Formats: sequence, structure tokens, C-alpha cells
Amino acid sequence: MKKLTYITKDEVQAIAIGAGILGTGGGGNTTNGRIWLEHELSQRHNACQLIDAGEIAEETLTCVVSAMGAPTVSIERLDAREQYLAPIAALERAMGERFGAIVCGEIGGANALVPIIVALQLGLPLVNGDGMARAFPELQMDNFSIVGVPSLPFALGDMHGNVAVFQTDSPTRAEKYSRALTVMMGSSAALIMPIMYGDALKKSLIRGTYDLAYALGEAVLEARRQSNDIPQAIAEAGRGQVLFRGKIVDVMRYTDGGFSRGRIELQGIVKQGDHFLIEFQNENLIAYHNGEVVCTVPDLISLVHMADGEPISTEVLRYGLRVAVLGFPAPRELKTPNALRVVGPSAFGYDVPFLPLDGNLL
Amino acid sequence: MKKLTYITKDEVQAIAIGAGILGTGGGGNTTNGRIWLEHELSQRHNACQLIDAGEIAEETLTCVVSAMGAPTVSIERLDAREQYLAPIAALERAMGERFGAIVCGEIGGANALVPIIVALQLGLPLVNGDGMARAFPELQMDNFSIVGVPSLPFALGDMHGNVAVFQTDSPTRAEKYSRALTVMMGSSAALIMPIMYGDALKKSLIRGTYDLAYALGEAVLEARRQSNDIPQAIAEAGRGQVLFRGKIVDVMRYTDGGFSRGRIELQGIVKQGDHFLIEFQNENLIAYHNGEVVCTVPDLISLVHMADGEPISTEVLRYGLRVAVLGFPAPRELKTPNALRVVGPSAFGYDVPFLPLDGNLL
Repeated sequence: MKKLTYITKDEVQAIAIGAGILGTGGGGNTTNGRIWLEHELSQRHNACQLIDAGEIAEETLTCVVSAMGAPTVSIERLDAREQYLAPIAALERAMGERFGAIVCGEIGGANALVPIIVALQLGLPLVNGDGMARAFPELQMDNFSIVGVPSLPFALGDMHGNVAVFQTDSPTRAEKYSRALTVMMGSSAALIMPIMYGDALKKSLIRGTYDLAYALGEAVLEARRQSNDIPQAIAEAGRGQVLFRGKIVDVMRYTDGGFSRGRIELQGIVKQGDHFLIEFQNENLIAYHNGEVVCTVPDLISLVHMADGEPISTEVLRYGLRVAVLGFPAPRELKTPNALRVVGPSAFGYDVPFLPLDGNLL
Repeated sequence: MKKLTYITKDEVQAIAIGAGILGTGGGGNTTNGRIWLEHELSQRHNACQLIDAGEIAEETLTCVVSAMGAPTVSIERLDAREQYLAPIAALERAMGERFGAIVCGEIGGANALVPIIVALQLGLPLVNGDGMARAFPELQMDNFSIVGVPSLPFALGDMHGNVAVFQTDSPTRAEKYSRALTVMMGSSAALIMPIMYGDALKKSLIRGTYDLAYALGEAVLEARRQSNDIPQAIAEAGRGQVLFRGKIVDVMRYTDGGFSRGRIELQGIVKQGDHFLIEFQNENLIAYHNGEVVCTVPDLISLVHMADGEPISTEVLRYGLRVAVLGFPAPRELKTPNALRVVGPSAFGYDVPFLPLDGNLL
């Protein structure tokens, strides 16, 4: 896997496609973020420095930057420049310290691009890695929470520059309070959380996930150029497999508690009666092939267009799409007993054991 | 009117009764607060120092302390000690300054007692006055907002010590964001807002309202001792009038957007067919006598028990109570054109002009 040290315009398309695949149906559409990022790159020396967690000093303060809210809203409403800078400045005031690097919370979907933009705006390096190696629906579902990064203040910002700095006693409380405020902020807010020193970052970051997003996207672009089997090329780039190829024959979707929930039914194109079902809560959580569980969270279940390999997020699912379902094994960090309590099937209400795909994503 | 310089156990009962009357139906029941205040007084030198706004230096930072939430919840759930101290400490960190005095936001109801408790806990003086001279349902309905006190950070705290420090661009946004978070905090939160320097406090505080609450309460207690006409004694102490004496014959109440809304119908006891109607949103807003408007917000409309003069808040209204309806003229500060836009009848959706009662409360 190619090791990136800078992100320039040349890498943006591949990272955006790869991040969409790692979004596993959620994480938000990358189109707006990609346009914004390309604009920021053209304004600011055309490159964002990407550094390893190992290069961060133990006492350097870093902050994780994400967009919080409903993906369906973030497609339609652009973020404002102030949305991220104001809460970051408020946290620097609260801590009496400056941040030394920007960190990605969620490499899956639009949240892969937001930290690059913020790092460019602030002239800070971006750390190569994130907290999930995919997307998850709730804040506490990341490796920062799983390994128990010490709790420091966090902040939310809206598009008008309004800011709230929180100090809470648990990740669950943080999720509950910031979700409620995000809804009032128009279901689209800047979230700066967690903030942590270099020592905590080194223990909790899932490393190299920008390289992974880039590799997945490059696999798509290269297979297009070569007219190869695109789904197969993506699966190989992510140490995964093609779980199914078929046509979407039904989509059931509803909004519940700020989440997009539902299920997707697919039919095989070649074999009559071949049936595939995926259930999702923002992200795809569990896949059944002819009634049998074949993949579950935290392993990654991603849909891509059969024709061009573009990732398909839950908000644009519709009848008739011809898709491939890809399964990727989760990284080691998400498969510990502690992690499975937070991101395993039972955390989402499924009474099935986690049956891991072979291997590890990273 | 007696000028208080200290609040001791001897003043608590009268202040609590007077604050209940100034609550005009809202502001929360004072029973729990009174017990807590009496406990704090017995722990801490038995007295809270009460100072005039004129005694505050221009550059001294002060903070307004209130309980925010649904009165029906605060009857049943006790506040925790940390609930107020943690957000105050967070604001001192955010400002890099200590507070020099505590200020009351709302003298009507339980929020008259909370700042006394906090002043005792912190060993700080309490300023004699508040922002409303009564109770109002929304944050921005106070003279601090009306005169445009400069916007500084504010904070919310829950009973577990969780804190959010906000910086917002308007009082309306502050109300919206903090209301949403208060609901998540169990509909009962500590609100530290606004914070301001002495110069802004002097321009915006409605002064002497602790003296007023005490005078109203003392009028009740004295009339009880003398077996005088209690409603008439209260009216005289507050420069107001007895608008009606009668029996509650109907109460219609519903909860909407976190507010308690509804109306109260009364019938005269002596004269057959004498009819009185009050509409409320947490607080009593408008009174009709036989179909004609006789009193409107911001003038104060308060119900007290006929027998003993105890104030009656909207959450304990019920059929059959024999009550007196008192009307008090609002203080000058709430009757300016600027103020009437925020707290006049039209601000609550009534298409009637403000017909002020004669005189001024203070």
C-alpha cells in the first residue's frame, strides 16, 4: 500500500472514492467535501502534510475533527468556514494551549475530507489514521472511546459561528448531549472531539487509514482504466471479498431518533431466486445471503455500482440499481472483546455472534 | 419598603412567599429551594450579604444564576450541589477571571432562592435586584437582553457535573440551544447567563427586587397575624389591586414545546354569572373579566389562596380552589417600547394593546 506523506489535488479523487467505500453506506456523501477540499488546496500551497502518529510528541495537543449530523442534510447544506475554526479556537482558549495536529475521527465518508480542509485552513499537519477505519452511527463507537482516551473538553459549532464547549463524564452522555444540540443546529454541526495529547493518540489511533482510502480509490480508478472487474479489484485492495452481485429489488427506509434505518433487498442477476438482504442504521450492519448471516458489523459491508465502482450510500439507494456487495474484515482494533461490546452485532441489537471474515483490514 | 442588607433564616419565609407571588403562576415552586436555602444558611455563617448594584466596581465580573427547565420537574427532582458550581467554574476558566458577585435572573418563583444558595456556597455577595421583577417563560425576556448587555459566554450544568459553555450570536439562539440541551439534561439544568461586568449590570438590573419579594411576603405574614384582608394587603404592598375573587371552575392545560400552556376560568363567589378568565404560558399572561381584557403582560397577574395568601402556580391549579387574582403594574424597565416588543402582549401572540395598570411596581 502506497504511503502518503502529502495530500494534493492528485490524491483527492481516489481518497474520496475510497472514503465512500469505507463509509459502508453511511458517513455522508463526499461530493460537497471534495469540491471544498479542491478549493482549499488551490488556495493553500496545494498540499496538506500527512504525518504518522509516531511523529507526534507525547505532550502535543491534537484534536479530532468531524461533521456531525444527518447525511441527508449535509448533502444539501454546505458547511461554513467558521463552523470548524470557531469551536477549535474555543477549545484552545479553554485549554490555554494550541493544537499541534489535526486528526480524523471517521475515515468513512465525508468525514475523511473535513479534517484535511481544517488542517489546510490552520496550516497544521494531519495525522494519517482515524478512530474507526470505517463509519459508525454514534460518537462513542470509535477506538478513542474503546481504549478509554482521558476525557477532556470537546466542542460543537454551527454554521453561524456559535459554539458550545462541553465537559462530560462519559462518552454516552457526550453523544446524547451533542446529538440534541446538533439537531437544533440544523442537523449539521462541526464536532471537535476528542482532543488528546500525543501519548493518548498513539495508543488509540487506527493508523494509515488515509493510505487505505487512497488504495481503495486507486483500485477503482485503475480497474476502470484497464476495464477489469472493478468489484473484484476493490475487494483485493481491501483484503476483502465480493459477497454478492445483484439488483436492488426493495428498499425500506425510515428515520428514527436522528438515524436513517432500514433494509435493502437484492436479487441475483444470473441465478434465479438468489436473495441477499442488508440491514442498516446509517451504516450497513448485517448481511444475509438466502437467509444466512454472511457478514456482520464491525466487518465492513459496502455497496458499489457494478458498472463503475462508485460507492452507494444509504440515502441514495433505490430500486433497480445493479450493485456489488463487498465485505472487508475489520481492523484488529475493532475486534477485541472491549471493542465488540461497543461495535459488535449485539451493540446494535442483533442477537447473533460476530463471525469475522478472514484477515484484517490493516 | 425595608431595605435588606443580609438574608438570614428570618427573611427566608417572606422572600419565598413574595417570590411565589412575583412568579405570576410560573417560575417554579419554592418549597424545595427554601429547604435547601435554610440548610445552606445553617452551614455558612447564617447570612448572605446583599449589596446594591451601585457597590459593584465597573470591571468586576458578575454572573446571573438560574434553574432552567420545566417547573413540574423541579418540584420532583432536587438539584445537586455541583449543578451550579461546575458551570460557574467552567466560565471562570473560559474568561480567565473570577466572579465578584452573584446576580438573580428571575425573582419570580424558585429562581429567587437559587442565587442566594450559590452566593452562600461561593462566599460571594448577592446583588439586590434581578432581570425581570417577575417570571417569564423564555431566557431573552429579561432586561439584560432588552438593554443589550454585551454577549459573553454562558454555561449550562446538569446534576452530574456535566457542563456546556456556549458562545452564541443572539439571545434567541441562546434560548433555542440551551432549551434543547436542558431537555436532554432531564428538563432541569443550572443556567449561568448572562455574565457581565459591573458597568453593564448597573445599566440593566431591575434594582431592589429582593426587598420587594420580602415586602410582599411580609404583607402576607402580617395580614395573617392581624386577620386582615390578605389579598388586599398584598395588593397594597405591591402597588397593585385585587382584580377578582372567586372559585376556579375550569382548568385547561397542555404541554407544548417544553412550556405549560392553558387557561383558568373563575366564577365570582358573591355575584352570580361574574366570570374571569386567565390564559398562561408557564406564567399568567392575560386576564379577562366578563370578556373584557383587564390586565396583560408585562403587568403581573398572580393568583393567591383566598384563605392564607399563599401563591398558586400553574402546575397546582385545580377545580374548586378559592382564590384572589392580583394585578401589579410592571416596573418602568419592562414598559419601554423596546421592552414591550419582547415582553408585551404581541410577543406572546396576543393581538391586543398593552393597557398598563396605574403606577409602577418599583
